[in-house]
Amino acid sequence: MLMTKVPQTPLVPDNTLMTATPEEGRALAITLARHTIHAMQGELEVLKAGRPKYADDAFGLIAAGHVVAIEFATVAAANNYWRR
Amino acid sequence: MLMTKVPQTPLVPDNTLMTATPEEGRALAITLARHTIHAMQGELEVLKAGRPKYADDAFGLIAAGHVVAIEFATVAAANNYWRR
Amino acid sequence: MLMTKVPQTPLVPDNTLMTATPEEGRALAITLARHTIHAMQGELEVLKAGRPKYADDAFGLIAAGHVVAIEFATVAAANNYWRR
Amino acid sequence: MLMTKVPQTPLVPDNTLMTATPEEGRALAITLARHTIHAMQGELEVLKAGRPKYADDAFGLIAAGHVVAIEFATVAAANNYWRR
Amino acid sequence: MLMTKVPQTPLVPDNTLMTATPEEGRALAITLARHTIHAMQGELEVLKAGRPKYADDAFGLIAAGHVVAIEFATVAAANNYWRR
Amino acid sequence: MLMTKVPQTPLVPDNTLMTATPEEGRALAITLARHTIHAMQGELEVLKAGRPKYADDAFGLIAAGHVVAIEFATVAAANNYWRR
Repeated sequence: MLMTKVPQTPLVPDNTLMTATPEEGRALAITLARHTIHAMQGELEVLKAGRPKYADDAFGLIAAGHVVAIEFATVAAANNYWRR
Repeated sequence: MLMTKVPQTPLVPDNTLMTATPEEGRALAITLARHTIHAMQGELEVLKAGRPKYADDAFGLIAAGHVVAIEFATVAAANNYWRR
Repeated sequence: MLMTKVPQTPLVPDNTLMTATPEEGRALAITLARHTIHAMQGELEVLKAGRPKYADDAFGLIAAGHVVAIEFATVAAANNYWRR
Repeated sequence: MLMTKVPQTPLVPDNTLMTATPEEGRALAITLARHTIHAMQGELEVLKAGRPKYADDAFGLIAAGHVVAIEFATVAAANNYWRR
Repeated sequence: MLMTKVPQTPLVPDNTLMTATPEEGRALAITLARHTIHAMQGELEVLKAGRPKYADDAFGLIAAGHVVAIEFATVAAANNYWRR
Repeated sequence: MLMTKVPQTPLVPDNTLMTATPEEGRALAITLARHTIHAMQGELEVLKAGRPKYADDAFGLIAAGHVVAIEFATVAAANNYWRR
């Protein structure tokens, strides 16, 4: 499986979690979820190699995005949110 | 996929998480969930392009809203909830 | 979709998260979950307009209640739990 | 739907979250989950009134228990865990 | 249903959450999840008494383990992680 | 069931949660999720012994990874994220 450390499309736009307002923070949350789901699209296909694509692929991607969201919450807290 | 930074219907009403009471806070939570699900409705259709709509679309939207809720919790904590 | 800011049945009984004991806190948690699920029952029917009701409606409601619970955790933390 | 404030079987054994060790804390977590699932068993049947029981009832109960667990985390934090 | 307070296989190895490194902490997290799922295996069979075993049993156990994980997070925070 | 304390492929690359930027933290979150899912692949097969592999195996693994993510959040908080 590919070990993609820094994908071409950034996972975190502008490499920061800081936003000026809750509205922008909310938009950032949607972007984080979306970029991660795309980054994993290739991986999920490898996991299901040899099987026809199911209607529930979207669900699998969302479920995987869910796990990453939780892991990221932990990593972010550990790093004090990389506040500058 | 569209990069919608600031949608026309605000994701966060009044651009704040501050409310006077828990009752209003609870109503805000429902609104946050609902607005995000609508903002992503167009996106989920793109993801499933070419496939007939399934009975579980509502579930896909809710699942996606779930991920965003977790991401937003992290972003909000990072920004100290944009307290004024 | 209806923009119900303050429904007739309160979402948060007594408009507080403070309880005297864990036992009452636990009962409050169940009540919060239940009231929110009822408040959204009408909304989920609109989302699925035109489709026959599925056996999994209960699941859809619970899933939606799940998202609101996470959003509320964020809003509550932002407001320091409206401690008095 | 019944408004059961204090059920006969306590939701929280000994009305405290304090335990001497992680092992007991872990057993308490299992108990909390189990008691809540039982308390809601009657409620879920009302929600699905008129429909035959599905194989996924266990899942519905677990899903509901999941929501309550998140709500309780918020309520508990609000009350500073009722530390004595 | 059995009220198993302290099962024979400990739920928490060494009765502590403290580990020297993140790698060991990660292994502990997997162990916590696994031991709890086994402890509940007997219980889930009682819940589904009289019904043939479904392919989704593994999912039911994982879902139940999920709820316990959230409850335990609350209990652990309440007890300040039993830090020594 | 195998008691794998320290698998050959590390669960936590570089045995730390500290990263220089949010982008690297996000990539770490994806890696944590992925390594754990692989570590458990063998275990899930044991759990479902004797049954043909289902299309939903990917979901079972993701669900299990989800539980571990929550447990790890607790363990990490308990250890103050092993900050150095």
